[in-house]
Amino acid sequence: MSRFLFSCAYDGAPWLGWQSQVGGNTVQDCIESCFARILHEPLRIHAAGRTDAGVHALAQYFHADVPESSRMDAAAWQAALNAYLPASIRIMSVQLAPPDFHARFSATGKEYEYRIFCGSVLPPHLAGRAWHCRRKLHLPTLRRVLKLYVGEHDFRHFAVRRGNEPNPIPLNFFFRIIFSATLTCRGEMLTLRFCGSGFLYRMVRMLVGAAVQAAAGTISPSDIDVALRQSHGASPCFCAPPDGLYLLRVLYEPID
Amino acid sequence: MSRFLFSCAYDGAPWLGWQSQVGGNTVQDCIESCFARILHEPLRIHAAGRTDAGVHALAQYFHADVPESSRMDAAAWQAALNAYLPASIRIMSVQLAPPDFHARFSATGKEYEYRIFCGSVLPPHLAGRAWHCRRKLHLPTLRRVLKLYVGEHDFRHFAVRRGNEPNPIPLNFFFRIIFSATLTCRGEMLTLRFCGSGFLYRMVRMLVGAAVQAAAGTISPSDIDVALRQSHGASPCFCAPPDGLYLLRVLYEPID
Repeated sequence: MSRFLFSCAYDGAPWLGWQSQVGGNTVQDCIESCFARILHEPLRIHAAGRTDAGVHALAQYFHADVPESSRMDAAAWQAALNAYLPASIRIMSVQLAPPDFHARFSATGKEYEYRIFCGSVLPPHLAGRAWHCRRKLHLPTLRRVLKLYVGEHDFRHFAVRRGNEPNPIPLNFFFRIIFSATLTCRGEMLTLRFCGSGFLYRMVRMLVGAAVQAAAGTISPSDIDVALRQSHGASPCFCAPPDGLYLLRVLYEPID
Repeated sequence: MSRFLFSCAYDGAPWLGWQSQVGGNTVQDCIESCFARILHEPLRIHAAGRTDAGVHALAQYFHADVPESSRMDAAAWQAALNAYLPASIRIMSVQLAPPDFHARFSATGKEYEYRIFCGSVLPPHLAGRAWHCRRKLHLPTLRRVLKLYVGEHDFRHFAVRRGNEPNPIPLNFFFRIIFSATLTCRGEMLTLRFCGSGFLYRMVRMLVGAAVQAAAGTISPSDIDVALRQSHGASPCFCAPPDGLYLLRVLYEPID
């Protein structure tokens, strides 16, 4: 067996998310079916993490153990998979990885981008690719909230429970570190970037949703501050739509 | 009757071009069906020009005469049409126009953009939105060819015949003026812009195709120079795919 690490980009709009499911039509199902066509046997792939339906990736990572008998190197895998994959999924890079490397457990962090279009009419080329937010947003407040997110916090109020959490839930279960959270504006497009040690389920969309609510004046930044400091109490819960979310990259230690 | 001038943007990928046709599924058919739903009667719209299947528009223009009985102003028309149109077509602006204004005959020029992606793997978000050209292109040659295009020329060798040309064809029938033809590079994306008095059928795609052939070394710039100067002889005919073509804007004299 040889373990390879693949990075792939996808347009999330036509797919029901990353994770394989009954009925298929997920990115994982599609990629695994291409491996099966090439190898003439099923192969399981292991991603750095899931993305929800409609969420995009510029560099999602996954690893797979391929049989030596395939006699294919990294370049051959990239070419073969891209020949079978639809245009909405592309393998962007392939490299050989050590046998103990794991796309999920070896990751040291992730970076996401969230795109918000603030103009009155959403240009057709942004449909499904940005959140069309018609509310007037106060950008200094948006920046102030992003600063609150940076650091290590209990993000329990900024996540959706999957229902598969351990019982009892460990004390540090919802703790994550946000290394940076920035805003850039270009015309009517706002781009929020989050780099962190890891993210809870729907966390980026919840962080964006709360920040936008504060920038629109629906809640105050101090509501968010309180939610970050208290494990009890209410959540400023509002989940931004998947359309604007992009997994930009997964951070790993350099692989020899 | 009130004449309104509309600008619209569309993603060309899901549509069989602008022009209405039996079987529908064109941008014009879609917009006219929205007018019919709002007015409860059919209405014909008149565009600045056609775009082919797969070709995009950031600002296509069309005019329409709407009955006074609709009692709708420009803002109401924009809101109503966008409420009925799919996300791949958006009305970007509406204004009242004089009764003798014509979206096609009042136009003084048009601007197009053509996007070429030169990287080895086309990112999924550019699928259908750029020409993926894997050939190594010599950019100084590309720029040299673009300079040849500028000015007034007989572009008969850079057009596809529709079959509905007058017989005999007038001497100046294929003459057009290119005001500017420029190239900008950003990473692996090349953007060619053409501004001109008007364009023959498939002309922009033929100009791009010939320029790329020269930049790839398949033909020489002097072949193109000759084709621009002679009404007889061969055409360096190669039509670039529709995916990369965007109608940027239509030029009009200011409307009071």
